[in-house]
Amino acid sequence: MDDVEIRVIERPELKDSILIEGLPGIGLVGKLAVKHMLDELKAKKFAELNSPHLPPQIFIQKDGTIKLVNMELYYWKGKHDLILLIGDFQGITPRSQYILSEKILDFSENFNLKKIFTLGGLGTGNMVKRPRVFGATTNKKLVNELKKYGVVFRGGGAIFGAAGLLIGLGMKRGYDGVCLMGETHGQIIDAKAAEAVLNTLTKILDIKIDMTKLENKAKETEEQINKVQRMISEQEKAAKMQEKFIKETPSYIR
Amino acid sequence: MDDVEIRVIERPELKDSILIEGLPGIGLVGKLAVKHMLDELKAKKFAELNSPHLPPQIFIQKDGTIKLVNMELYYWKGKHDLILLIGDFQGITPRSQYILSEKILDFSENFNLKKIFTLGGLGTGNMVKRPRVFGATTNKKLVNELKKYGVVFRGGGAIFGAAGLLIGLGMKRGYDGVCLMGETHGQIIDAKAAEAVLNTLTKILDIKIDMTKLENKAKETEEQINKVQRMISEQEKAAKMQEKFIKETPSYIR
Amino acid sequence: MDDVEIRVIERPELKDSILIEGLPGIGLVGKLAVKHMLDELKAKKFAELNSPHLPPQIFIQKDGTIKLVNMELYYWKGKHDLILLIGDFQGITPRSQYILSEKILDFSENFNLKKIFTLGGLGTGNMVKRPRVFGATTNKKLVNELKKYGVVFRGGGAIFGAAGLLIGLGMKRGYDGVCLMGETHGQIIDAKAAEAVLNTLTKILDIKIDMTKLENKAKETEEQINKVQRMISEQEKAAKMQEKFIKETPSYIR
Amino acid sequence: MDDVEIRVIERPELKDSILIEGLPGIGLVGKLAVKHMLDELKAKKFAELNSPHLPPQIFIQKDGTIKLVNMELYYWKGKHDLILLIGDFQGITPRSQYILSEKILDFSENFNLKKIFTLGGLGTGNMVKRPRVFGATTNKKLVNELKKYGVVFRGGGAIFGAAGLLIGLGMKRGYDGVCLMGETHGQIIDAKAAEAVLNTLTKILDIKIDMTKLENKAKETEEQINKVQRMISEQEKAAKMQEKFIKETPSYIR
Repeated sequence: MDDVEIRVIERPELKDSILIEGLPGIGLVGKLAVKHMLDELKAKKFAELNSPHLPPQIFIQKDGTIKLVNMELYYWKGKHDLILLIGDFQGITPRSQYILSEKILDFSENFNLKKIFTLGGLGTGNMVKRPRVFGATTNKKLVNELKKYGVVFRGGGAIFGAAGLLIGLGMKRGYDGVCLMGETHGQIIDAKAAEAVLNTLTKILDIKIDMTKLENKAKETEEQINKVQRMISEQEKAAKMQEKFIKETPSYIR
Repeated sequence: MDDVEIRVIERPELKDSILIEGLPGIGLVGKLAVKHMLDELKAKKFAELNSPHLPPQIFIQKDGTIKLVNMELYYWKGKHDLILLIGDFQGITPRSQYILSEKILDFSENFNLKKIFTLGGLGTGNMVKRPRVFGATTNKKLVNELKKYGVVFRGGGAIFGAAGLLIGLGMKRGYDGVCLMGETHGQIIDAKAAEAVLNTLTKILDIKIDMTKLENKAKETEEQINKVQRMISEQEKAAKMQEKFIKETPSYIR
Repeated sequence: MDDVEIRVIERPELKDSILIEGLPGIGLVGKLAVKHMLDELKAKKFAELNSPHLPPQIFIQKDGTIKLVNMELYYWKGKHDLILLIGDFQGITPRSQYILSEKILDFSENFNLKKIFTLGGLGTGNMVKRPRVFGATTNKKLVNELKKYGVVFRGGGAIFGAAGLLIGLGMKRGYDGVCLMGETHGQIIDAKAAEAVLNTLTKILDIKIDMTKLENKAKETEEQINKVQRMISEQEKAAKMQEKFIKETPSYIR
Repeated sequence: MDDVEIRVIERPELKDSILIEGLPGIGLVGKLAVKHMLDELKAKKFAELNSPHLPPQIFIQKDGTIKLVNMELYYWKGKHDLILLIGDFQGITPRSQYILSEKILDFSENFNLKKIFTLGGLGTGNMVKRPRVFGATTNKKLVNELKKYGVVFRGGGAIFGAAGLLIGLGMKRGYDGVCLMGETHGQIIDAKAAEAVLNTLTKILDIKIDMTKLENKAKETEEQINKVQRMISEQEKAAKMQEKFIKETPSYIR
């Protein structure tokens, strides 16, 4: 496998396409928002990305078949042509983050890339009823434009990982970029914050999306998580202890 | 040394060969199963793999001679032609895991590879009298086929390391793949789980293997481990403290 | 992006230029000193360095726009021609440190590099009223020369990161090098130590710089830090907990 | 800098040369032994090795001048021609260990390499009056030969780092190799164990070396260490806390 392998399923003709990133991050806010978006828009998967810069593991799916961890790119043609990026993980090392972000930009440039939105959460440690949407952009004009949509700008702070790098590296290539961050506690999966971000994004893009499923999904998700989390963490703990054990065992026994 | 160096001892003519992975992992289940298999089948070593993606160490063998840590490939010609993979360690970093798995697939493809089985343990934290064998496969047809052999499929969870990657990356190359996981506690070397996995595998492959030595080996192993484990861990601890100590010592003393 | 990408804004003609390093380190001593220096000298930015060897993040600036983390090079033509190096971070891995230091030396050699000064702090765990300036140099002649300026030399100890490597690797290329270290507590941002270092440096270089703003900046800085530090650390903590959380969540939920 | 840079000072004509490794490790046993050996034999430095696979730091020497951390190769022509390897550190990552060991073998092969001895300590957690010398070799014939010199062989265990890799990788190149390990506590610098190893080695090589300075050095060393260790560790601790602090500080302050 190359360092980053992108399998192209289809080569859509897109014009002035907008890349929207929703990889896992704080509160899963970005991922939930983009997942809902691509489900509701019936966006079409056109590329899959595998890489040794992602964790070395596979997932077992409901039907017993496996899935190698990956990132996926979907497109949607409408008022604006969209490229939607979703994935199981972000890059595992700082360097992986750079390499994957650059490759995603390289790939998106084949489809008339014009602008980049990255979606995420801003963890405050507080539970809020009406999460605000914070912003950061590649230029002052965009700041002023987004303020009209209620996006809050306050100086200071950093944006880690793909949500930061895609617009940071994109800016170096000359693309406008915006990061929208939903206010969130930080330690729970937060569909409410995702909803707030998506409401703002759809207003900016002037696209209509039915939001009812997003809140339902949030409730389902939280219930399921409580059940499976204990099982998974138990299994990982066992794997680690075993790894330690193996290291301490001399070769002639193994 | 190249990143991965495979020394080929012999180039057997195999047809529709089946790769069976038994690297160290949870409960040493996969390794114990494949080790027993290659001993009983009198499989022949045909290749050795060394790599900087394995730990930087050597083992001292019973007779005082050394062995650089490695992976080894054995073959067996019979009802099915088998390639058996065993080793001292898995790759040390996430990236190492990908690189080694790809190289093992590259190499196996020289011998008419048809299918991949990876063997491992599924840690549950419980001691069970009759360990179940859990499965994950590259397609739904295989799921149905394996259910006939009593393999249990339950959605969810992940498979880490070579046992996951070999079938995940193999699937991308178009190969059928199966992971069989013996139910195990997770923190002990578990020959019982290895036996359960091997019983299932030999039924699937329709190969006869005498199992008596596997249980005996398990008992021996556990006794030996108690003796040597303390010595080894003492030595590693000493090495680490010393490393720390050296770092804090100025150069003119050393 | 290449491993290290230097965007050149201007190619000044410099003669016998002196590279002065002020990357973040103990007490921010070097960074504060070089920052004050380039502000007061109205030095001109002539190059920016980006790299996957820096952390994968962007900063949100006061006006809501973003900045990809980087290093910056300024020049000043005067009694001595100076190249001033400042940055958001040092390289993230040991290897990154070597790669970035070599690239900075490669780049500086295009501008008639003659000598290298690196500035830093020497943490003693004590608060002192009159911080001393400790030194280390690439040859004995420089040691004797610097003693005249009150620089203290005591054998032993190590210099970590860019402050050490730039003169260590520079020495291998044949350049004279000096590291000046301001005595500092080690756990606070210390403008006093920066002032001491800068006083010594300007005497050595025979350059006049107004120092009043440096102490004022130190006071401001400390106040601001108390405010924002809690917010930032809260956010980072949240990000880490979330990361852990995501890893333990099975794929079909995400 | 290349990945590994070897500066050759002199190209001696050696015949059937024996490489003797004494890099820092458990109890500093190997380093103390080789250091004493090259001092007493008045061996001549003929090459220096620098690499990003060593820690990114410099040492401040007694006279205030600096030294980039390195490894050094000395030669001695006598009953046997010797190549003596000493250094400030071993490689910092597992991969670094492999890369450095391979390069040292590549280099040594230019000087008619015939055999490899690696020296180290075997930590037992006990203080002993008469440390034994344990061995591991690349073939059974060497085991029998070394037993005549009182070297103890007991199966099991592993040898970590350069002491293991140099003979493990050397064996793959066809060279005879021996690791001699002095019995040591593991957490103290142990000149007694170094003396035991050196006594055995000089008997094997049939070389006479005055041992009186080795014990004296051990006493000096321990006294000096108590003094400087506290200072150094204080400084490192400060550096780390500061690093953490910097990461949490927003960009506009820095």
